[in-house]
Amino acid sequence: MSSTTIPFETLSQRIEQIFLNVGACPAQAGAVARVIAKGERDDCKSHGVYRIAGLLRTIRAGKVDATSDPVLDDAGGGVIRVDAQGGFSPAAFELGAPVLAERARDLGVAALVINDCTHFSALWPEIEALTDMGLAGLAMCPSYAVVAPAGGTAPLLGTNPIAFGWPRPDRDPFVFDIATSVAARGEIELHRQQGKPLPQGWALDAEGQPTTDPEAALDGAMLPFGAHKGSAIAIMIELLAGSMIGDRTSREALDYLGSTTILPNHGELILAFAPERFSAGGAAAAMASAETLLGGIEDQGARLPSQRRFAARARAQAGGIPLSDAEWADLDRLRDVGLDAV
Amino acid sequence: MSSTTIPFETLSQRIEQIFLNVGACPAQAGAVARVIAKGERDDCKSHGVYRIAGLLRTIRAGKVDATSDPVLDDAGGGVIRVDAQGGFSPAAFELGAPVLAERARDLGVAALVINDCTHFSALWPEIEALTDMGLAGLAMCPSYAVVAPAGGTAPLLGTNPIAFGWPRPDRDPFVFDIATSVAARGEIELHRQQGKPLPQGWALDAEGQPTTDPEAALDGAMLPFGAHKGSAIAIMIELLAGSMIGDRTSREALDYLGSTTILPNHGELILAFAPERFSAGGAAAAMASAETLLGGIEDQGARLPSQRRFAARARAQAGGIPLSDAEWADLDRLRDVGLDAV
Repeated sequence: MSSTTIPFETLSQRIEQIFLNVGACPAQAGAVARVIAKGERDDCKSHGVYRIAGLLRTIRAGKVDATSDPVLDDAGGGVIRVDAQGGFSPAAFELGAPVLAERARDLGVAALVINDCTHFSALWPEIEALTDMGLAGLAMCPSYAVVAPAGGTAPLLGTNPIAFGWPRPDRDPFVFDIATSVAARGEIELHRQQGKPLPQGWALDAEGQPTTDPEAALDGAMLPFGAHKGSAIAIMIELLAGSMIGDRTSREALDYLGSTTILPNHGELILAFAPERFSAGGAAAAMASAETLLGGIEDQGARLPSQRRFAARARAQAGGIPLSDAEWADLDRLRDVGLDAV
Repeated sequence: MSSTTIPFETLSQRIEQIFLNVGACPAQAGAVARVIAKGERDDCKSHGVYRIAGLLRTIRAGKVDATSDPVLDDAGGGVIRVDAQGGFSPAAFELGAPVLAERARDLGVAALVINDCTHFSALWPEIEALTDMGLAGLAMCPSYAVVAPAGGTAPLLGTNPIAFGWPRPDRDPFVFDIATSVAARGEIELHRQQGKPLPQGWALDAEGQPTTDPEAALDGAMLPFGAHKGSAIAIMIELLAGSMIGDRTSREALDYLGSTTILPNHGELILAFAPERFSAGGAAAAMASAETLLGGIEDQGARLPSQRRFAARARAQAGGIPLSDAEWADLDRLRDVGLDAV
């Protein structure tokens, strides 16, 4: 399969044009394009150009407003709120992030609430925006109700991602971004396509019984990672990034849209920490302690999370982002045909 | 085995006297006693009177200063710090908690850092102190390096607990308090005593190879819950509640004391959230949304975390806390003989 490589900026602008062509406002088109280009750059294909069709489908269904500008509500305390006004989340984050960072430096800890957004991205681009500014970050959001609580029988929780980042001087940050489901829905779909049984503990069937049949699992519920512990964390995410921020839980997001084939509308919670305000020894002492810890992990031969992404990023920065001819053609088609292409 | 039942206050005062008798200052003796009595009240025997001997051993070893009063350092921002001055953590928490709660109400989110404390308690007593005030709380701390990171070969991380709580009007709060190791060290010890093999995935031997032999596991390393996901969370706890707050990581705590037979000295991080500052609909809307979510979980027949504790507490509140004659005799002995009893 022949392919070509392009710089990040070129890819980002090509994606941006697709969204401008279907009427998105510049703030949303630009922010969405940057997030998708980052996914492609880091070889996270499931969050790369593959995502564009789903976003266009959601626009076409009238379930996201790609024309609205997000609105910042900052009362001056530790909580900054951005109303995405029914738009995609990236523009809302870009509006709120500088205020969040400033407030975290001022107070030590601050929270960014994003409300009423259509969410499609991984959380690491946001986390890395914070680590790039020397802050630690913790982000989480609900999704669609496709996961049963531990001990339960039916979908109620989302795959609810949680991501964390710690800045490392002159190094890629420590970043993890994990779903609280034991597996991604796409992995179950892949097993179905390949006719392979699921591992034990991944899913329940529609009657709430454990199953290894991918078809039955897709009609039933996924399970949380780590049994009752992962389930507890998934519930925490519903409470903090759904109930507490006055936005939809995963059940409410699914009830609102009625389908997982378009992207969910809900909120998101992002916490930022300024290490220099927590450590008596200042940021330098905190960074040195962290390097000893992280170095100790690598010395054992254990891989830190996100290393595969960072390796892909380094390759892309050196030689461009590789895209297959089919992906190129698809970008052309989406640009030229717009919403009728999906 | 005959037993007797006593009110919470009576048990708490009996424990307090033990610590006063060995020279603890009133603030520390009282706070330690309340936490231990709560463990016994909730039928958490591993955090009940059983713990007293370990605390006395740590005093006897000169590794905790039970005479020092904690010192509050409040610069007026979102981070309140309490220096436990080498004492036990509960008095430090009791000093900082009201300031944390006030600051969370004022700013929306605030953090309490406890430094230089000997930590022996579960985290749920602290979390419930926050939910009792209508706040959500998230607490975490390192412990001793007895857990290998996912993909690693040797102990480096602690069993690193993380606890979360959400207030429920007129109900017991939603609370979880989980270790990030797949099992407690005591469970491995129990398998050893009973000559039973460990489940797969619990531990590594001293060569870093997977083992089901409890003896080999005790010489090796425990594993995190949930494979690389639990490992990532355990590392986050080291970074936030060790490196960031300028205190010991689990490795440093073990290196400092050289033994897991006495209790570790490190710090702790507690975040408090005021729901009324996050939700556009105020606290009432947040509480209503949470009740729908939690009710939906219970409607499936899934048990919310901490229900066994709350049931024991209800029994204790109605009929007193049951203690065996042997436990009573032990309390007498510890009170009368003090440090020479351990």
